[in-house]
Amino acid sequence: MAVANQETDGRRLRGERTRAAVLDTAVELASTDGLDGLTLGRLAGRLGVSKSGLFTHWPDKESLQLAVVERAREQWAERVVRPALDGRGGVRALWALHERRLAFYAEGVLPGGCFFLTAQAEFDDRPGPVQDRLRAQLQEWGGLMTSLAQDAVRAGELSPGTSPGLLAYELDALGQAAVTRSRLLDRQAVFAHARNAVLLRLRGLCTDPGLLPDS
Amino acid sequence: MAVANQETDGRRLRGERTRAAVLDTAVELASTDGLDGLTLGRLAGRLGVSKSGLFTHWPDKESLQLAVVERAREQWAERVVRPALDGRGGVRALWALHERRLAFYAEGVLPGGCFFLTAQAEFDDRPGPVQDRLRAQLQEWGGLMTSLAQDAVRAGELSPGTSPGLLAYELDALGQAAVTRSRLLDRQAVFAHARNAVLLRLRGLCTDPGLLPDS
Repeated sequence: MAVANQETDGRRLRGERTRAAVLDTAVELASTDGLDGLTLGRLAGRLGVSKSGLFTHWPDKESLQLAVVERAREQWAERVVRPALDGRGGVRALWALHERRLAFYAEGVLPGGCFFLTAQAEFDDRPGPVQDRLRAQLQEWGGLMTSLAQDAVRAGELSPGTSPGLLAYELDALGQAAVTRSRLLDRQAVFAHARNAVLLRLRGLCTDPGLLPDS
Repeated sequence: MAVANQETDGRRLRGERTRAAVLDTAVELASTDGLDGLTLGRLAGRLGVSKSGLFTHWPDKESLQLAVVERAREQWAERVVRPALDGRGGVRALWALHERRLAFYAEGVLPGGCFFLTAQAEFDDRPGPVQDRLRAQLQEWGGLMTSLAQDAVRAGELSPGTSPGLLAYELDALGQAAVTRSRLLDRQAVFAHARNAVLLRLRGLCTDPGLLPDS
């Protein structure tokens, strides 16, 4: 029985890994062509597999779109959130999130720069399950930054007059604007602006300069 | 001759007005469906005219896309830039640009919120004439804010340490982030964040509080 269970677990694990790998490719495609430009046919073509194999997992376009949003969310958690929070809280975590995010864009993890920017622009005027999932992701992400800012105020790291919700909006705006601008304008200047803007903003509110890098 | 010229001028003016009206509809469609979702067939359907009439003006998709970017640029100049600059310079003009921009989004001038956000996300990874035109628009818009910030530093309205290029990046990021967020999250809170973020930033740099609103 133990052996059988191990075999089943092994198969399940391999199945999950394959599924994640397929969805990683789907997130890449959607980051350039949008979620609506993503079809099972294009995905199968890119992966060199049959369309019918994918069809078993995602029988319609919406189920594929929902799985792709979820995979993009996991990818953001793995690449940005978890490494940034690793042992950090408050202001240090807010700064690390920003640096990790800019590195995600600068390293070209996704050919389109940011899956969420493309998907938000595509679905912000189309109510339905995909929009709901994108909204939930945005709330979770904004909520994380707001809660870190609240912790930082409570811990005395940020001045008492700081509005955590406003600060979260600012950090998110200043980070996200780098995506398209770094691709259309002077890349180095844009990433420098994105970094310096948040560093200046946090320094202006922070009671202990030692919590942030010197430059 | 004078009469003939007036008639010709009248026809040309009507022709230009019709062209602008057709392109206004195209900008609306592209603000939701993207420039690639915009076809002569869909545009003709929306306007209730024949596709062949439109085909005379824009024989291929790219010529239509370029005309739409140019019309969106004119619309932004008419609705945001000119009213904001009206008799204003420096810090007053920077603030008025931000207020006009937020009003443009809040009033729902375009069903998709912002043509440029959608088009930038769509074309930032697709080199070619449309990307070049979008880049030129972004440079012109960023250049306007940078130059107003430079004037403001020279006039002593902003503290001498202000970086005009960085400030332009900040203002643009804090304004643009309102587009999708106001549609996916709490609309009023998002517009309040977008307004307060820029007000706080300008107040922090401004030498004369009287140049900015109290709240």
